[in-house]
Amino acid sequence: MCQLLGMNCNTPTDIVFSFEGFRRRAGLTDCHSDGFGIAFFEGKGVRIFRDNKAGHSSPIADCVKQYHIKSFNVIAHIRKATQGAVTIENTHPFIREIWGENWVFAHNGNLTSIPDMSESFCQPIGSTDSEAAFCYMAEQLKNRFRKKPTEEEIFQTIQEITKELAQNGTFNFILSNGNWMIAHCSTNLHYLTRKSPFGTAQRIDDDDVIDFREYTTEKDKVTIITTFPLTKNEPWIKMEHGGFVFFKDGDKVYEVLGKATASIDDGTLGLAKIA
Amino acid sequence: MCQLLGMNCNTPTDIVFSFEGFRRRAGLTDCHSDGFGIAFFEGKGVRIFRDNKAGHSSPIADCVKQYHIKSFNVIAHIRKATQGAVTIENTHPFIREIWGENWVFAHNGNLTSIPDMSESFCQPIGSTDSEAAFCYMAEQLKNRFRKKPTEEEIFQTIQEITKELAQNGTFNFILSNGNWMIAHCSTNLHYLTRKSPFGTAQRIDDDDVIDFREYTTEKDKVTIITTFPLTKNEPWIKMEHGGFVFFKDGDKVYEVLGKATASIDDGTLGLAKIA
Repeated sequence: MCQLLGMNCNTPTDIVFSFEGFRRRAGLTDCHSDGFGIAFFEGKGVRIFRDNKAGHSSPIADCVKQYHIKSFNVIAHIRKATQGAVTIENTHPFIREIWGENWVFAHNGNLTSIPDMSESFCQPIGSTDSEAAFCYMAEQLKNRFRKKPTEEEIFQTIQEITKELAQNGTFNFILSNGNWMIAHCSTNLHYLTRKSPFGTAQRIDDDDVIDFREYTTEKDKVTIITTFPLTKNEPWIKMEHGGFVFFKDGDKVYEVLGKATASIDDGTLGLAKIA
Repeated sequence: MCQLLGMNCNTPTDIVFSFEGFRRRAGLTDCHSDGFGIAFFEGKGVRIFRDNKAGHSSPIADCVKQYHIKSFNVIAHIRKATQGAVTIENTHPFIREIWGENWVFAHNGNLTSIPDMSESFCQPIGSTDSEAAFCYMAEQLKNRFRKKPTEEEIFQTIQEITKELAQNGTFNFILSNGNWMIAHCSTNLHYLTRKSPFGTAQRIDDDDVIDFREYTTEKDKVTIITTFPLTKNEPWIKMEHGGFVFFKDGDKVYEVLGKATASIDDGTLGLAKIA
């Protein structure tokens, strides 16, 4: 299995505090040492850094730390291989062009079966279930909509495709087009939104402390999504199994609750618009 | 306009000697300062580093230099913008998945017209003529062949598509799938193959000297393709206008000569197999 980290904000934000805790789990505080990757959106463009070395000691990860890239949307992944060798082409996050946008995807889980894609327009390059699932999603989206539909339609269609794929295993994922970020929880995914009034946070993995008041303005909103909480003293929300969230500008815009809250959810592919 | 650099070898090779001369042209010895990018194939995977800062001073380019990544196939580009803002999404090389492989493309030139791709499966993300041309190429290849054809068929089809696109401007490019490298010369492109017996080379841009005997074995073959020669004392071959070459493992496998040698070329899309 693996661990996921996502960030969606309303102001370009440096993810280094979160990433430095996260990447300790790639060989120091946990065993997700089979490569790492991190994608930073910059406008419609993306910078992706990947390494098949362990994230905690990778020189590429050191380079990422050094340059303090600020971004509205970031997706990172540390890998514990289940399917596919420890190679660059099997290293998340994966990227594909959809409707003239870069879409970036990272997965935690294991899917035992994916539809045949050997003659698809969008084919996997490596041998992971994760990339194949993302390609299936891209192919389906492009087949259903030749031009980019509304965000609501995108969110609903992704739920439909996800439910199909998730029948074959565990499918926690984070997905972004550089504008919004969608997260799906199959088993483990947590999030929190940092906003005014800002305070301090202490990392779980090495006890390092940050005072966000030194780095923020009153208007800033920064949502962090991660497999397991990264800090000790913040109100992380555990997503329900089967739940979906849609974040934009650091705000939760849509949410579909999962199994543990079936009495609240209407059971359809509906949307709960968040004010 | 821009400048191109490609490397195709039969052994994993460090491109730093060539790249360090090349990137001086991005702000020091020439004016190609509108971003740079470099893609290293590693198996079926690719590491791409891009920056919208000038290549000669970019911290990302410094990071590339520092890690001495060895690869069989590398494509780099320094940009002097003609179409499209100086942003990451407009920075070469561009990458797309074709038949389950990463294909990497960099262009020097200017195309004044590209077929409409607003409903294509493969769409450009940025606003350059270069990325749009590459997407058109990818779409055409996938439409004509649902599964990967032979290398000869690929080379011939790329010639056909190139001739169509090149009607609308200057179209020097380097293209690789991580296995082979294809170069097309519209106006300026040079290459040379370094092989045993190796000697020394002196860079044009800063006079730095390397003795390849210290880094090579007798079996090594390293082909370098570039807009203008990088060294003073090596036998660079200037490609003819309209010419195509196909390199694999550092060897020139196929060549189609251009206009200046029309009396040798048979004028069709034929192949001259090189022993």
